[in-house]
Amino acid sequence: MAGNSFGTIFKLTTFGESHGKALGGIIDGCPAGIDIDLEQIQLELNRRKPGQSAIVTQRKEPDTVQFLSGIFEGKTTGTSIGFVIENTNQKSKDYGHIKDVYRPSHADFTYTEKYGVRDYRGGGRSSARETASRVVAGAIAKQFLKNIEFYAYVTSVGKIELEENDTIDFTEIEKNPVRCPNAQKAAAMEDYIKQIRKEGDTVGGTVACVIKNVPVGLGEPVFDKLHAELGKAMLSINAVKGFEYGSGFKGTQMKGSEHNDAFNSDGSTKTNYSGGIQGGISNGMDIYFNVAFKPVATIMQKQETINSEGEKVEMQGKGRHDPCVVPRAVPIVEAMAALTIADFFLINRTTKA
Amino acid sequence: MAGNSFGTIFKLTTFGESHGKALGGIIDGCPAGIDIDLEQIQLELNRRKPGQSAIVTQRKEPDTVQFLSGIFEGKTTGTSIGFVIENTNQKSKDYGHIKDVYRPSHADFTYTEKYGVRDYRGGGRSSARETASRVVAGAIAKQFLKNIEFYAYVTSVGKIELEENDTIDFTEIEKNPVRCPNAQKAAAMEDYIKQIRKEGDTVGGTVACVIKNVPVGLGEPVFDKLHAELGKAMLSINAVKGFEYGSGFKGTQMKGSEHNDAFNSDGSTKTNYSGGIQGGISNGMDIYFNVAFKPVATIMQKQETINSEGEKVEMQGKGRHDPCVVPRAVPIVEAMAALTIADFFLINRTTKA
Amino acid sequence: MAGNSFGTIFKLTTFGESHGKALGGIIDGCPAGIDIDLEQIQLELNRRKPGQSAIVTQRKEPDTVQFLSGIFEGKTTGTSIGFVIENTNQKSKDYGHIKDVYRPSHADFTYTEKYGVRDYRGGGRSSARETASRVVAGAIAKQFLKNIEFYAYVTSVGKIELEENDTIDFTEIEKNPVRCPNAQKAAAMEDYIKQIRKEGDTVGGTVACVIKNVPVGLGEPVFDKLHAELGKAMLSINAVKGFEYGSGFKGTQMKGSEHNDAFNSDGSTKTNYSGGIQGGISNGMDIYFNVAFKPVATIMQKQETINSEGEKVEMQGKGRHDPCVVPRAVPIVEAMAALTIADFFLINRTTKA
Amino acid sequence: MAGNSFGTIFKLTTFGESHGKALGGIIDGCPAGIDIDLEQIQLELNRRKPGQSAIVTQRKEPDTVQFLSGIFEGKTTGTSIGFVIENTNQKSKDYGHIKDVYRPSHADFTYTEKYGVRDYRGGGRSSARETASRVVAGAIAKQFLKNIEFYAYVTSVGKIELEENDTIDFTEIEKNPVRCPNAQKAAAMEDYIKQIRKEGDTVGGTVACVIKNVPVGLGEPVFDKLHAELGKAMLSINAVKGFEYGSGFKGTQMKGSEHNDAFNSDGSTKTNYSGGIQGGISNGMDIYFNVAFKPVATIMQKQETINSEGEKVEMQGKGRHDPCVVPRAVPIVEAMAALTIADFFLINRTTKA
Repeated sequence: MAGNSFGTIFKLTTFGESHGKALGGIIDGCPAGIDIDLEQIQLELNRRKPGQSAIVTQRKEPDTVQFLSGIFEGKTTGTSIGFVIENTNQKSKDYGHIKDVYRPSHADFTYTEKYGVRDYRGGGRSSARETASRVVAGAIAKQFLKNIEFYAYVTSVGKIELEENDTIDFTEIEKNPVRCPNAQKAAAMEDYIKQIRKEGDTVGGTVACVIKNVPVGLGEPVFDKLHAELGKAMLSINAVKGFEYGSGFKGTQMKGSEHNDAFNSDGSTKTNYSGGIQGGISNGMDIYFNVAFKPVATIMQKQETINSEGEKVEMQGKGRHDPCVVPRAVPIVEAMAALTIADFFLINRTTKA
Repeated sequence: MAGNSFGTIFKLTTFGESHGKALGGIIDGCPAGIDIDLEQIQLELNRRKPGQSAIVTQRKEPDTVQFLSGIFEGKTTGTSIGFVIENTNQKSKDYGHIKDVYRPSHADFTYTEKYGVRDYRGGGRSSARETASRVVAGAIAKQFLKNIEFYAYVTSVGKIELEENDTIDFTEIEKNPVRCPNAQKAAAMEDYIKQIRKEGDTVGGTVACVIKNVPVGLGEPVFDKLHAELGKAMLSINAVKGFEYGSGFKGTQMKGSEHNDAFNSDGSTKTNYSGGIQGGISNGMDIYFNVAFKPVATIMQKQETINSEGEKVEMQGKGRHDPCVVPRAVPIVEAMAALTIADFFLINRTTKA
Repeated sequence: MAGNSFGTIFKLTTFGESHGKALGGIIDGCPAGIDIDLEQIQLELNRRKPGQSAIVTQRKEPDTVQFLSGIFEGKTTGTSIGFVIENTNQKSKDYGHIKDVYRPSHADFTYTEKYGVRDYRGGGRSSARETASRVVAGAIAKQFLKNIEFYAYVTSVGKIELEENDTIDFTEIEKNPVRCPNAQKAAAMEDYIKQIRKEGDTVGGTVACVIKNVPVGLGEPVFDKLHAELGKAMLSINAVKGFEYGSGFKGTQMKGSEHNDAFNSDGSTKTNYSGGIQGGISNGMDIYFNVAFKPVATIMQKQETINSEGEKVEMQGKGRHDPCVVPRAVPIVEAMAALTIADFFLINRTTKA
Repeated sequence: MAGNSFGTIFKLTTFGESHGKALGGIIDGCPAGIDIDLEQIQLELNRRKPGQSAIVTQRKEPDTVQFLSGIFEGKTTGTSIGFVIENTNQKSKDYGHIKDVYRPSHADFTYTEKYGVRDYRGGGRSSARETASRVVAGAIAKQFLKNIEFYAYVTSVGKIELEENDTIDFTEIEKNPVRCPNAQKAAAMEDYIKQIRKEGDTVGGTVACVIKNVPVGLGEPVFDKLHAELGKAMLSINAVKGFEYGSGFKGTQMKGSEHNDAFNSDGSTKTNYSGGIQGGISNGMDIYFNVAFKPVATIMQKQETINSEGEKVEMQGKGRHDPCVVPRAVPIVEAMAALTIADFFLINRTTKA
């Protein structure tokens, strides 16, 4: 209920505050007998890590994951997988100045109202630092799903966006710090992010994701449609404001005669406005969707706000923050997609007599 | 798991196929002691009913709900509420011609692959007829939530859309068959839908929803953020392709300095790009979001498709279908919003010691 | 949360009060493609029905189940199965006299305190009439599990009990109204129940259950051990006060050297004190357990009690009640066992990579 | 699904193998604002610890719990509480000799069959070492429930049992190593356990639990009755074979006229055969129940068994094991009772409009 779990059969539960002792989680329901490549998990985590390039936060966190259970002699055992990531860079004093301040468009006000108390250090539980645990679990989900491929990438930063004629080259994604699959646009986005940082400002952006080789039949009709869970998964990531799949919002302007995906004789379709999902169930075509991220709320400019007494105060972000989250959001989007697919993959085994 | 339930504490489970004996559901976890206005429930159901205007499907279904338990002497008792809506207009023979045909962009192919069998009559369980049960449950959720107001309305049909300067008048919504809060745009949309129907075609559209008077504190951080569940709720409605809340996709183009919502001294905010939700928790401001609906897949034009043997066949929609779903989707969007809020309202009672 | 569901994948949710319009339920997660024998389901329901013999309640309820969805052309479709059993014998007036009375050892007091309101007619939701829905769902679970056999039977009525040397003949169970697998003891029990009824009193008893051909591997270790769920399933039946499996309470007096079940080379065991379950997981041996039922609280004798104002009142049970529940509990025990096994059977499919 | 979680709102998920790096868990849904006494938690853990007296296993494990999140400045924050207990005494080599051996009445065979792999060191996940995490969570539940008192105690060891006329003095429980509330019987039990240990054997026993000051209204009728969840909670503890509450198995021999609990004018009852629960809901009287523990399977005697190839092998338990689990089971029974009550306490807040 309290919202720290994702999934039903392949289920992740996470814990940890931004400036507590450690983050971590428990993966329950991961099948037994999966070969686990620990190095690969750490590599995924490194893709999300602060300090990896000049356009992301310069905090230094090694973000080393340590597994405590559920993996034995290189394989999952079917028991719950516990893991921790220590917070080695806790500078709690940095946060004394915001102890009683409600930062605009942050969760300070709502947490205090909801719980009566709040770990104010670095956003506490509301910090995107929590997503490190998701990346760990997502990496294991990927190793379980083996043949299914997840490609997330940045499609826009502010108003700079991939356009219809821009080439998309998945091998380009990890070659530039923006994680955009078009080198030219990547360069423009990178420049723009640097300029935004200089202004002490932040900017939003969009991440797309393509999932290949999804077997037919994943997703449960009615409330737990595959795209409904994918949507929830994405909307649960910090700073996300929107989700669309297949034809998305643009599809609302189309006619049925244009939008319908005609079948080939093998059940594949000639077009894919459906985005790989029909009636909430995967149809074997590529699944694709877009995720909208708002600009980070912490800016390096003076802002007027209130404190917990409702008094006006002035504040200014300090320290080491992302001017744009989308580059680091890419591995998180993939992780949440992998967790969603892994769960439906297992649920689908219970469908037939 | 099998996806026929929504909610955790205030939970709806539904059953029923388009052409089976009846639809219905069970509401579990509805608090005891709520005064139930049965007439009001039926009125909500009538808003969704086929045949209510010239621009929706002309099927005749009375859609009368009958309650079987959980309400006694006009009040909920805290026990599970069972209800049924009989299917009085089952013309199964109408569907013999599509028994083995996979209709493009429908769920025929995916259901057959997933389950090995399929009730082919009128889409069976994949039919939007299932949403009648959601409207019943949503109407009860509204009666529980009393002071919280839900206003869904149509904001676009095809390329005709409400623009920034168009006035929005909530009292207009139920006065026109499109359910658009601007009479002039409503008329244009109505004309367009009629034209589309003449072409034997269909068209998509968008529905917005505003929720007023939501108390501060609803929503569970991390995975079950209020907007993540709202998103899932909306994406679970038939034909939905996208969801955005607050600044949504447009917000990705903004800078943090523009997007941040400055506080007033009472905790309310001067702007509301956050859409009434911060850190996944309601902040007391209006919640608002948009939902994208694709064009209905059933068109009255000849289409080439395949049958279950993979053979090419030609088919043409017959009978009584909606040229555009958004007018009838309005009460469904409200119902799903009410169910989501009711659930979080109850969960929130467990938050403090 | 509100407690009207059982199971996780193969899940039953029920509704209905003793004297409402109807009882019923939704089975969600029942796999597709199961051949359904409707007559067999009705036969199971008849085993639980009032009025079937001279030693059970003489109420007349046809208890006819009607399926509304999820079964098409004789097979389950994988969609939710809705069903209803109408209450044809509602004599609400019968209950006017207990409207404000708290019957001793009934749920009248606790329901009123918990919910503030109560459907007082015949116990409302707390009536064992609810178990009819369980028998329907259990019958479907049995048809899914085909080769797994469930044998519940009465082992004691008051102080008359099956003793170690009494022969147990499963073919005897349905031949006598007590459902005891030993004809002689059955006769003694029957006589005793008749005498108890004459006294206007009631008496408790015990039901045993043996489950044969359970595959190895069912049950989830730690909290959801197979016997823990079986225990919960049984304890959820009205009037149950205890559950033990394998060596049970007697096993507490044994030494490890006596109690350990030595293996045969095929993994079967020479003895079966474990009751077919080790570490919470089935080991392929017969599962067996005992369920304790208290005497029915409604007696045909005068009792002093209180009303909702806390005033002393005198009351006397009227009408048609069971002097001993165990004969009618037998099919309910089997149904709950079948539901438990069906659920673990499906969960177990998700265990390996 | 995979069974490593307990509870619905106040939910514990655990991880950890007997000889892995650490055990631990996440408590989700613990309300915010509870004052946490860390020392008291450690004291509860010490009651369960190996090596605390001459009649329990002599393994040395400090069992120090470390909290990683969810507690800030001495109070719970409403976010998930992560904790770990390091395994400092891992002697994996000790277990080489049983790597391929299936120990009788252990979970070796069933785990291997279910998962295909198994962490064979000390029973891995099937070891009762897992219950340390339950005691931690139970201690927090107790601090939340403050006024509700939990008294578990040993009522029998083998055939030595508390009899009807034996005085029960709760202050005696922690004064003797057996945790029996009668000093004389405690001494006899202690002697017996020492003798059993000398024989290289083990013995079973029974634990009773009384819960005082439970408010009226806890428990959800139908499937999630308070006693059904308590039963599941207890049956999920290692070595448990049975559960009964109130009049229990003995109540089956009583007549309704003897068993009914007559009301006092304040709603309390003159007798308490109901065990504080009516219709699955607490009625404010003391809740009491009994839990049956089988003899520990690991004995210090030679046993013939099989290995994973089905070959006969001889084995003998080594090292440091409990000759009787009931003394150390007492805090575990209390912990599981506290977790159950805490969960229903929170659920009950959602019951009324």
